[in-house]
Amino acid sequence: MRVLVTGGAGFLGTRLIQTLLDSQTTIGGESISAITSLDMRACPVTDSRVTSVVGDGSDGEVIAATLTSDTAVVCHLAAVVSSEAEADFDRGMQVNLDATRQLLDACRGLPRPPRFLFASSLAVFGPDGTEPLAEDVAPMPQSSYGTQKAIGELLVNDYSRKGFIDGRACRLPTIVVRPGRPNRAASSFASSIIREPLAGVEAICPVGAEQSMWLSSPRSAVANLIHALELPAERLGSWRTINLPGLSVTVTEMLDALARRAGREARALVRFETDPDIERLVKSWPGALDVKRPYELGFRADEDFDAAVAAFIEDEAAAGR
Amino acid sequence: MRVLVTGGAGFLGTRLIQTLLDSQTTIGGESISAITSLDMRACPVTDSRVTSVVGDGSDGEVIAATLTSDTAVVCHLAAVVSSEAEADFDRGMQVNLDATRQLLDACRGLPRPPRFLFASSLAVFGPDGTEPLAEDVAPMPQSSYGTQKAIGELLVNDYSRKGFIDGRACRLPTIVVRPGRPNRAASSFASSIIREPLAGVEAICPVGAEQSMWLSSPRSAVANLIHALELPAERLGSWRTINLPGLSVTVTEMLDALARRAGREARALVRFETDPDIERLVKSWPGALDVKRPYELGFRADEDFDAAVAAFIEDEAAAGR
Repeated sequence: MRVLVTGGAGFLGTRLIQTLLDSQTTIGGESISAITSLDMRACPVTDSRVTSVVGDGSDGEVIAATLTSDTAVVCHLAAVVSSEAEADFDRGMQVNLDATRQLLDACRGLPRPPRFLFASSLAVFGPDGTEPLAEDVAPMPQSSYGTQKAIGELLVNDYSRKGFIDGRACRLPTIVVRPGRPNRAASSFASSIIREPLAGVEAICPVGAEQSMWLSSPRSAVANLIHALELPAERLGSWRTINLPGLSVTVTEMLDALARRAGREARALVRFETDPDIERLVKSWPGALDVKRPYELGFRADEDFDAAVAAFIEDEAAAGR
Repeated sequence: MRVLVTGGAGFLGTRLIQTLLDSQTTIGGESISAITSLDMRACPVTDSRVTSVVGDGSDGEVIAATLTSDTAVVCHLAAVVSSEAEADFDRGMQVNLDATRQLLDACRGLPRPPRFLFASSLAVFGPDGTEPLAEDVAPMPQSSYGTQKAIGELLVNDYSRKGFIDGRACRLPTIVVRPGRPNRAASSFASSIIREPLAGVEAICPVGAEQSMWLSSPRSAVANLIHALELPAERLGSWRTINLPGLSVTVTEMLDALARRAGREARALVRFETDPDIERLVKSWPGALDVKRPYELGFRADEDFDAAVAAFIEDEAAAGR
């Protein structure tokens, strides 16, 4: 069977595709014979089983062309990230809401309802004051990105209830440490303040040192997404939204881990300079989610933040960077 | 200033328009000079200030034509009701989601952000087991209607946060006693089992006698909608979704009130005959909402169910029926 990954050329999509192939994952008792990546550029994974469709995932014709009759799994990762969706409301709505809806509707045309993974976010929550936030707390997002993700969750649940798809909406933590360059996620700095100093480069932290964040390493995030794909529907019950496990870590604790790994000189490369737009978004997100039910379902967090930093260094070395 | 009411020819829309005119309501310090009703038929209110636009509220051109530069208030009541949205998924999505979105987007073209009332529903909630349900409980709807209303709430909140509108999303209770004929709301029977016996006609109750429902008379519902329009934005805070007050009443208690008013013969006209589709929907809705915050904001419930029955009889007499 075939897996479609939207955003398959992105950082998380690429890791997901590579890991699905490396781990010989079976989903619903079937092994993966082919993976289609749909993104604005080609997926960098070099494997004969991977096909890249380069195109606009909000174009109905492109979507239709990527969903073939053997598609049994859809991983919908493509999104406009938080700061961009806040700055360009219409583009956020188009990609994060309309394209999700089009993809869900296109799935209704498949011979059988696909397992459908939706990458949601902790940004669905607004400030609540009762952290850790459980899955039965109302999303009251304070960003358009969070609103669009919360709407996606509702759609995935209703399309699942109707039997159009077999959905799983996973609320991702902020992923740290991402390799490469900063992006337009308001949380992008959380990777920069580790990644840049490790490379001997200055980094700016746009929020206060006491800010708490809910973090996951890329490895844990990908492992949890694959676990969500593997779980039989009956284990999930009637509500398909899952708080993914993470670590609740303050910026100070992140920088302490950096110093333990790379010394005080590395830590000294991080300069605090408040960015009100970024700070408002980050402050509106929960610093901790309640993951009792997800743990019972077998989802797991990183051991600690030092392990996440170590994993990044290991992965960079393996990639020859 | 002008008020636009979508669904203005419907039962609730007509009552709202009539009451706005009769009560000389001022909204945001301005009095109402004109009301436009947008519906598939003309609004029956006979008043020179009322203009009916007869057309499809999910047609962008029709919406644009009804939103004039003097529109300061939009009351969005038009919807496909619960059983119909469950039976015809695409039509529910088109009217309850797409048309809401189109109307919200059209509001961005007005000279000033209008006060925007969105008729949501207790159907946004799924079975939770911790009734009464407060506004910070996650909507986990078990119907497409509830999903579409929950999405509408999220949109109204985000469009308000962005300053595109000044929104108020009111979760209406089941409205009892509605005059006229049954409709395709799963809750329609709750009016039928009072209205028909009062007219000496048999009625069927498709749910069990022990079923709890969250009810409001039309009078209280309209008064609460107008109160929502009148409330200054700063009273609402950053979250614009409001659980409207109601009475938590079982079917047995409803029939007891009927018997007190019209005798045991009237009550004997109600026959129980389970309809699994209706029962599933009604059972998925909460029998009680937590309305502590709405009460503090000045929203009010009916005194008791007997008062709601009496109000119906009074209104019917006034209407010459």
